[in-house]
Amino acid sequence: MAEEGSVGIVQTQQYTFAEPPYELELDCGRALGPITLAYETYGSLNADKSNAVLIVHALSGDAHAAGIHNTTDRKPGWWDNMIGPGKGFDTDKYFVICSNVIGGCQGSTGPWSINPKTGKPYGLSFPIITIGDMVRAQRQLIEHLGIAKLLCVAGGSMGGMQTLEWMTRYPEMLQSAIVIASAPLLSAQGIAFDAVGRHAIQADPSFHNGDYYETGEQPVQGLSIARMLAHITYLSDESMRIKFGRALRSESEYRYDFSSEFSVETYLDYQGEQFVNRFDANSYLYITKAINYYDVAAPYGSLDNAMARTRGKTMVLSYSSDWLYPPYQSQEIVNALTRQRKDVTYCNIQSDYGHDAFLLEVDVMKKIIGGFLQHVRHEDRKTRGIAHDVDSEAEFGPPSSASQSIYEGHRVDYEMIVDLVDEGSRVLDIGCGDGELLDQLIERKGVDGAGMELAQGNIVSCVRRGISVVQADIDKGLPTLPDQSYDYVILSMTLQVIKKPDYVLQEMLRVGKKCIVSFPNFGFWKVRAKTLAMGRAPVTRNLPYAWWVSPNRHVLSIKDFREYCAERSIRIERELPLNRKGLVWTARMWPNMLADEAVFVIAKR
Amino acid sequence: MAEEGSVGIVQTQQYTFAEPPYELELDCGRALGPITLAYETYGSLNADKSNAVLIVHALSGDAHAAGIHNTTDRKPGWWDNMIGPGKGFDTDKYFVICSNVIGGCQGSTGPWSINPKTGKPYGLSFPIITIGDMVRAQRQLIEHLGIAKLLCVAGGSMGGMQTLEWMTRYPEMLQSAIVIASAPLLSAQGIAFDAVGRHAIQADPSFHNGDYYETGEQPVQGLSIARMLAHITYLSDESMRIKFGRALRSESEYRYDFSSEFSVETYLDYQGEQFVNRFDANSYLYITKAINYYDVAAPYGSLDNAMARTRGKTMVLSYSSDWLYPPYQSQEIVNALTRQRKDVTYCNIQSDYGHDAFLLEVDVMKKIIGGFLQHVRHEDRKTRGIAHDVDSEAEFGPPSSASQSIYEGHRVDYEMIVDLVDEGSRVLDIGCGDGELLDQLIERKGVDGAGMELAQGNIVSCVRRGISVVQADIDKGLPTLPDQSYDYVILSMTLQVIKKPDYVLQEMLRVGKKCIVSFPNFGFWKVRAKTLAMGRAPVTRNLPYAWWVSPNRHVLSIKDFREYCAERSIRIERELPLNRKGLVWTARMWPNMLADEAVFVIAKR
Repeated sequence: MAEEGSVGIVQTQQYTFAEPPYELELDCGRALGPITLAYETYGSLNADKSNAVLIVHALSGDAHAAGIHNTTDRKPGWWDNMIGPGKGFDTDKYFVICSNVIGGCQGSTGPWSINPKTGKPYGLSFPIITIGDMVRAQRQLIEHLGIAKLLCVAGGSMGGMQTLEWMTRYPEMLQSAIVIASAPLLSAQGIAFDAVGRHAIQADPSFHNGDYYETGEQPVQGLSIARMLAHITYLSDESMRIKFGRALRSESEYRYDFSSEFSVETYLDYQGEQFVNRFDANSYLYITKAINYYDVAAPYGSLDNAMARTRGKTMVLSYSSDWLYPPYQSQEIVNALTRQRKDVTYCNIQSDYGHDAFLLEVDVMKKIIGGFLQHVRHEDRKTRGIAHDVDSEAEFGPPSSASQSIYEGHRVDYEMIVDLVDEGSRVLDIGCGDGELLDQLIERKGVDGAGMELAQGNIVSCVRRGISVVQADIDKGLPTLPDQSYDYVILSMTLQVIKKPDYVLQEMLRVGKKCIVSFPNFGFWKVRAKTLAMGRAPVTRNLPYAWWVSPNRHVLSIKDFREYCAERSIRIERELPLNRKGLVWTARMWPNMLADEAVFVIAKR
Repeated sequence: MAEEGSVGIVQTQQYTFAEPPYELELDCGRALGPITLAYETYGSLNADKSNAVLIVHALSGDAHAAGIHNTTDRKPGWWDNMIGPGKGFDTDKYFVICSNVIGGCQGSTGPWSINPKTGKPYGLSFPIITIGDMVRAQRQLIEHLGIAKLLCVAGGSMGGMQTLEWMTRYPEMLQSAIVIASAPLLSAQGIAFDAVGRHAIQADPSFHNGDYYETGEQPVQGLSIARMLAHITYLSDESMRIKFGRALRSESEYRYDFSSEFSVETYLDYQGEQFVNRFDANSYLYITKAINYYDVAAPYGSLDNAMARTRGKTMVLSYSSDWLYPPYQSQEIVNALTRQRKDVTYCNIQSDYGHDAFLLEVDVMKKIIGGFLQHVRHEDRKTRGIAHDVDSEAEFGPPSSASQSIYEGHRVDYEMIVDLVDEGSRVLDIGCGDGELLDQLIERKGVDGAGMELAQGNIVSCVRRGISVVQADIDKGLPTLPDQSYDYVILSMTLQVIKKPDYVLQEMLRVGKKCIVSFPNFGFWKVRAKTLAMGRAPVTRNLPYAWWVSPNRHVLSIKDFREYCAERSIRIERELPLNRKGLVWTARMWPNMLADEAVFVIAKR
């Protein structure tokens, strides 16, 4: 039965192209035809055909992403928890297409298909397929469906590689893209695991060099060994410890033989058995090889050149415990997009589930993907108010929970900062929290604004406000940002808690033509402490450091900050002493006395 | 040719026992006999037989740990870089024994051996062997060699499991133990990888259910697949990226077929081929099964009960990039030993080499293992001066490089602290740096002292001084330490830079009957700044925190510290204001004015 929020009963469809006399040219130099692609669609295409979202699948996926095939079907599509009415890919709003890949074995042309030239299954005579070939074929399907431009292409794992290929090969056909748990290329470790899996299949006596279709049995043992191995790489050490630990299947005592007795062993046996019933060994060889070959940068000379080709918004999601497509590989994509000044949002989602997290972390993915798609579709700011709600905070804790900004009072500095920024300028807010300041800047000054933030809850809030944000630790600086690439770089009420203020300020000045910094003024306390002696942080035999190079976190005053700017020959353009009511006019004489916070506009000399 | 520092040409020896009518009772309930163990020895046993070190090997290791077998032998023993004259296991000082395991295939009784009852090789009729059985057999060898007590048992990976078994099964026979890159038990992930490897062997048509010896060919493909898979787990993602990346074996272009073309593939092929020439498939099944079964805690109900049985000094070494025996598993051993108040030293060695690091990180291992063994052998402090040198700093950077203590001047507080501590008391110095204070405390007060420190260079310095030290981040508190388990817990000149001073001080008071804290006095600076107003850290609208709960790092004065003690109802037993010359007697009236640092002795009320 179709559950609440399900797309219900769906039919897998097929589209055949490259029929004689035509053929599809492949990357390997050979041609293939005719080609059939299996696909499914959910929701309905709107009048101007602007709401189509293409879902591309991982190694063992297929066209059946959501819903069920009949009333007695117990097993819904592979991404049913993300695709449906009110779900992350909301079928009430979007026309969702999921396409199988060529080389596959679930309704699309692959090694199991009959070679029209021989009348027999291709087997290993099937040409080597690349991710590029898969996407080339998908493009034919999209055009067949009469869609000129996709609202979004999204996929996880190998699906993320197909998404990267779409972004670089057919940028004009995309409004946005979501690259999930993926990488610009597979690591040497990943290639090694796939190679061992292929060895296991090829070593199986039933493999018969790929011509096993007529024997009626496929290399079951080799394929199940390959699957067991791969399955380990989809989980994490943590998730396996939680799920199995060292539990025994049934006995309480060791059996002292070589049968599978640990729960984790019997679980893997089961995964292997299930897999061989639904997947073709030759397809496993071809698809893993396609993954191993993929390198989005190769055709363009560098990852930056490749990302320079992309258009529209991109969101990249990785998962903290994913070691098959580790977060640092997603960050390489994000960094290249950032260097190329593309509109990119990134979140490394905290999860114990390993690579499988992209199929399991539904709650946060629903919020972040749903919010992202809504703003891709409605570019006008008006909708932002609607889109934004704070219940994400309820789930992820208050923005400040893991935020680097510790300040939580009423933000008098925001007004000042918004006043200081020029209309329509390009702004980066580092430690942007839940995006409130950027929201005001976009609303009132129509700036092209982006944020940098550490806390997952804040990232989600920003995305749901339609603000592009990259998850990063500002204490690590802004290494991926080009010199002078923003009109303003803003650091509000965060300076006093970051580890390396000197380094971060130098980075801000490198990246921003102007920088705006606000911080609490400790000079003010010293006033109340009735001393005008020196508004400086202590320097003694035991603390032989100026505050800005101190390993201690820092208490600084307006005087301290002025002194720092002098030391580093930084030009102070504006200095605004504030108290809770706003600008302290009287403070123009004695800001360090009367102001309890300050906003500075600085720039390189 | 034997190189400089080599033990030269060695012979593998054999010892046979459990001959009729005797047999060795095994954990599986069956008995085995006769049993032959292959072993090698290096260096010479001293008169009182007190310098014997037993080396136990990993899954695919053997008795040949060092030297060469003949003048043309190109390949020295598996741990030749650690065993020899002047090396980590210095054969000029120690009599080093390396024993093969039963179940093995390099000269010891295993499934390849002839079953005297049938006159044929055992094959799978060989009984299941456990780590306990391996150690039981090794004990017979040690007694045969006339050694009543071993100076040390040391091993990595499965060798670490054998070491743990020695520590818990025959504690009276050990003076010390070194557990390297190991775990109390193998993780579910590790068991899963081994299970897949066994499947590959058993699925090989040449396996013949283990009776392949007479066929003249062993299951080569299955065994090489198992080895390739295992080999991946011995490396790290990082080391594989550095070593192979995506380099192709020869061609610059993809070959678009299923042959091994990436360098990492051909490397694994080579590893597989080499392995099948020297290792027996049945032994691989038996030994991996022994590893999967091992759980040091099982016979005793808990890891703490197991570690409670141990005697003497233990050193535990893990490697930062080891994901097969991850550092957290070594830390579980260390924590249990600590809870049981055992003498334990721990270092998580920074390395990119993954699990293989225990065979490759020779420099640091030579220093830390050499230093450890020297102090096990010479318990008297005199030798400590000799053993200690600071060249470790040259290699690992100054102690403060990654230390949590930032203070580097002349330590006037040390003298005061040494004076304050009672003779022969039990002392823990958290953030102990290179062990200087503990050294003075042991020399002058004969205390039972141990340290806690973060920086690897400092850990090495401590070990070479003969000081037991556990690598840990004091900001994470002292969760593994029982209440009131030390007479004194000391935190010198570190309070002002730790993240959560309140939490750490509470932990110190829980663990120590008395706590000694020294810190720089900011009140002193305020004196110089000509203000007596209030010796307090600022509290304003923008910093609504007392210094000790502030997310900012903290500037505190004697008054601040007194106030904190009052707030937390902590008893101040002594308060010693200091300047660079020492105790400031005149400061008794105005310590906050005249002292630039202070030492407090505090306890729970």
